[in-house]
Amino acid sequence: MKNLLTLAFLIMSALVSQAQNAGNIAEVIIALEKAALDEWGKGNPTPYLELSAADVVYFDPGTEKRLDGIEQLTALYESIRGMVHVDRFDMKNPKVQAVSDMAVLTFNLDSYAGENILKWNCTEVYRKEKNGGWKLIQTHWSFVKPEMK
Amino acid sequence: MKNLLTLAFLIMSALVSQAQNAGNIAEVIIALEKAALDEWGKGNPTPYLELSAADVVYFDPGTEKRLDGIEQLTALYESIRGMVHVDRFDMKNPKVQAVSDMAVLTFNLDSYAGENILKWNCTEVYRKEKNGGWKLIQTHWSFVKPEMK
Repeated sequence: MKNLLTLAFLIMSALVSQAQNAGNIAEVIIALEKAALDEWGKGNPTPYLELSAADVVYFDPGTEKRLDGIEQLTALYESIRGMVHVDRFDMKNPKVQAVSDMAVLTFNLDSYAGENILKWNCTEVYRKEKNGGWKLIQTHWSFVKPEMK
Repeated sequence: MKNLLTLAFLIMSALVSQAQNAGNIAEVIIALEKAALDEWGKGNPTPYLELSAADVVYFDPGTEKRLDGIEQLTALYESIRGMVHVDRFDMKNPKVQAVSDMAVLTFNLDSYAGENILKWNCTEVYRKEKNGGWKLIQTHWSFVKPEMK
């Protein structure tokens, strides 16, 4: 009986805590993304790799098909380490749709490098891991209105 | 005391039920997507609209920026009602990553119409709603390796 009550209390405490935290999820997720993006723009993929879960899946305009898992993503990112140079990013209208342990971040991104501006669509899905931290489990980058041949 | 025990029992039952259902989430989500896609290929966007939540967000290669909400998505889909004709779809390697009340479905899709094959990347995010049904809250379609001008 005492164990059951303790369990009920723990479960309810967890639920209350989750509700209190819900408002902060968007803030946390956007901060994680911006920090990784800033380093990406300097040619450093390490923060994105550290932010990605073992089972991460990934699309970008250069991939033949979905990449599955951190090993495939690491191979791609390491192949371009030091090659990305962006003057600044403008993350436009980021939106987070969340439940307690999963959150979707979507935004448009203007990426400025010299005279060039690249315009992106982005969908990031984060999952709350057992240690309480958030990890990327899905990344999808695509061009806004690509002008096709 | 009795109320607390009842509450603990209900919460535990819900958790056990969620665990039992987890294995079925992928099956349910993929079936929902395929059913909507089949109608889409006949020019009928209604099933996708009915499957989408009020707060759905959306990207495709023709959107200037993210669409926000079912009204914007409805306007887009109704503008092309009856105009899509696909002979068949090949959904390749669908993968579902889920927690109890949110799930990400990713796949590549080959879309066959006459002599043409279009190759797509797709990310769909589903959320479990209060009535227990799943709704799309995010859709992202992009071309595989678009050949740019």
